[in-house]
Amino acid sequence: MDLPDQITIKEVGPRDGLQNEKKEISTEDKIEWINQLSESGLSYIEITSFVHPKWIPQLKDAVEVAKSINRKEGVTYAALVPNMKGLERALEADVDEVSIFMSASETHNKKNINKSIEETYPVLKEVVTGAKEAKKTVRGYVSTVFGCPYEGPVDENQVVDVCERLFDMGIDELSLGDTIGVANPRQVHEFLCKMEHVLLKDQIALHFHDTRGMALANTATALQLGYHTFDGSLGGLGGCPYAKGATGNLATDDLVHMIHEMGIDTGIDLDRLTEAGFFIQDKIGKPLPSKQMQVRAKE
Amino acid sequence: MDLPDQITIKEVGPRDGLQNEKKEISTEDKIEWINQLSESGLSYIEITSFVHPKWIPQLKDAVEVAKSINRKEGVTYAALVPNMKGLERALEADVDEVSIFMSASETHNKKNINKSIEETYPVLKEVVTGAKEAKKTVRGYVSTVFGCPYEGPVDENQVVDVCERLFDMGIDELSLGDTIGVANPRQVHEFLCKMEHVLLKDQIALHFHDTRGMALANTATALQLGYHTFDGSLGGLGGCPYAKGATGNLATDDLVHMIHEMGIDTGIDLDRLTEAGFFIQDKIGKPLPSKQMQVRAKE
Repeated sequence: MDLPDQITIKEVGPRDGLQNEKKEISTEDKIEWINQLSESGLSYIEITSFVHPKWIPQLKDAVEVAKSINRKEGVTYAALVPNMKGLERALEADVDEVSIFMSASETHNKKNINKSIEETYPVLKEVVTGAKEAKKTVRGYVSTVFGCPYEGPVDENQVVDVCERLFDMGIDELSLGDTIGVANPRQVHEFLCKMEHVLLKDQIALHFHDTRGMALANTATALQLGYHTFDGSLGGLGGCPYAKGATGNLATDDLVHMIHEMGIDTGIDLDRLTEAGFFIQDKIGKPLPSKQMQVRAKE
Repeated sequence: MDLPDQITIKEVGPRDGLQNEKKEISTEDKIEWINQLSESGLSYIEITSFVHPKWIPQLKDAVEVAKSINRKEGVTYAALVPNMKGLERALEADVDEVSIFMSASETHNKKNINKSIEETYPVLKEVVTGAKEAKKTVRGYVSTVFGCPYEGPVDENQVVDVCERLFDMGIDELSLGDTIGVANPRQVHEFLCKMEHVLLKDQIALHFHDTRGMALANTATALQLGYHTFDGSLGGLGGCPYAKGATGNLATDDLVHMIHEMGIDTGIDLDRLTEAGFFIQDKIGKPLPSKQMQVRAKE
């Protein structure tokens, strides 16, 4: 098996995880949790979202969280930004990186952003330009890459088109999202093989969801093709908004565990990471779906 | 991706799943459940165990279950048999196939069978010979192939030696068990590549546990190497005896789902299979860990 020696894991739990949890977490606990994450060896943490609090009340304290956490050297602190108003707040909070987002499928984009795909581009372009002027790096998220909850399969040419439009704006990295967890290893293999000729491997991250249990199988497939950046949400925090009770984000701790077992370095201390998982599980007040936490809770 | 067109899934839930569940299931419900499994398109069901009821009280009704189920044409009904006394009962119940079992690691074998590995062989040899005389096929299970809860990593040469000894007895198929769910895709790849020169691919089944979430990743890895027989326990029934609350057996429905999504045929109707999963979940009285059942319960 030809595998990379080292890969990068990006933690999106404080944003992508928390935004899908109903239980309100205090600003103090978010700060404490992010500080624990910083100490686990993660090099990238998406700490919050500057989407209007009307849409995501859980993250209404975005500026305070971003300003109050300990900024550890070598760690990139990123936040989601939907528009210029969000960018203003993100720059005020001095995040290191700005994440923009859209969907590869028209219906999901419309339901999520309330704009058509074409209408979305100029808004994102403005944010990317503003972020770049402020010397920030920019990450793009593309949702529903491997399937849409409303449209089913998504045309690969459409995905490529969206990705290229985002890179043309000047983004630094693109995270390909399996938003509803339908991707399978064969599909991931075929998709990534096609994309190789269009997208730079070093600028692509894979954002798998574990809704149907295939996230680690898809990860192993992408690893074998030389992809080396993966997103996770600690403990599997977040759930799946399309199937209540089912899993959403891949658990970072399960991802890190498999990667380490495969002899690949991440720079992360899995024990400390899992401890941070138990901290947030305690605050959320229900068991998180992570296998690592289930195994460790009973040892 | 070079994948087989068709593979075989073997259902071990009524034996391997139920034996690890505390809630007593009535004989009537077991029979009904196995009949539902037969109608789902499965070609192989391990229906019970003829281990002494003192050790597995849940399966004390083995003879009655085996005698009362509907035997569907084309379906192999197998049962676990530890010794000649068990074989006698199994033959009385007229099962199609006899499964024998042992561990690749000395300590697990001792704790599970109360014999050393060397002391185990003659007992199994007697069973295999008796089963063959009665014109039954025989399956061998080897546990702790990828790691032992007591000894940690298991020497591959030791595994090969155990496998060869079982094939020398005349068994028809060997199921390689990742008993505690520690195998990772790289390990599975390397192990199976080594084994190719020793074991016939057509006589090997893979029995993965999902304790750490890697079972489907390991399955995808084995599929790419041309292995085409996999064990599962519907719904993930069974739990993990070494980490209470954690998952044990890979859920057959999650396995079938991924395989189908990858464009590989199993002959199984996933809807009917999942319905049978909800039936036994209802009898067990707690949510089973299968992702398919979580997703479908909420749709």
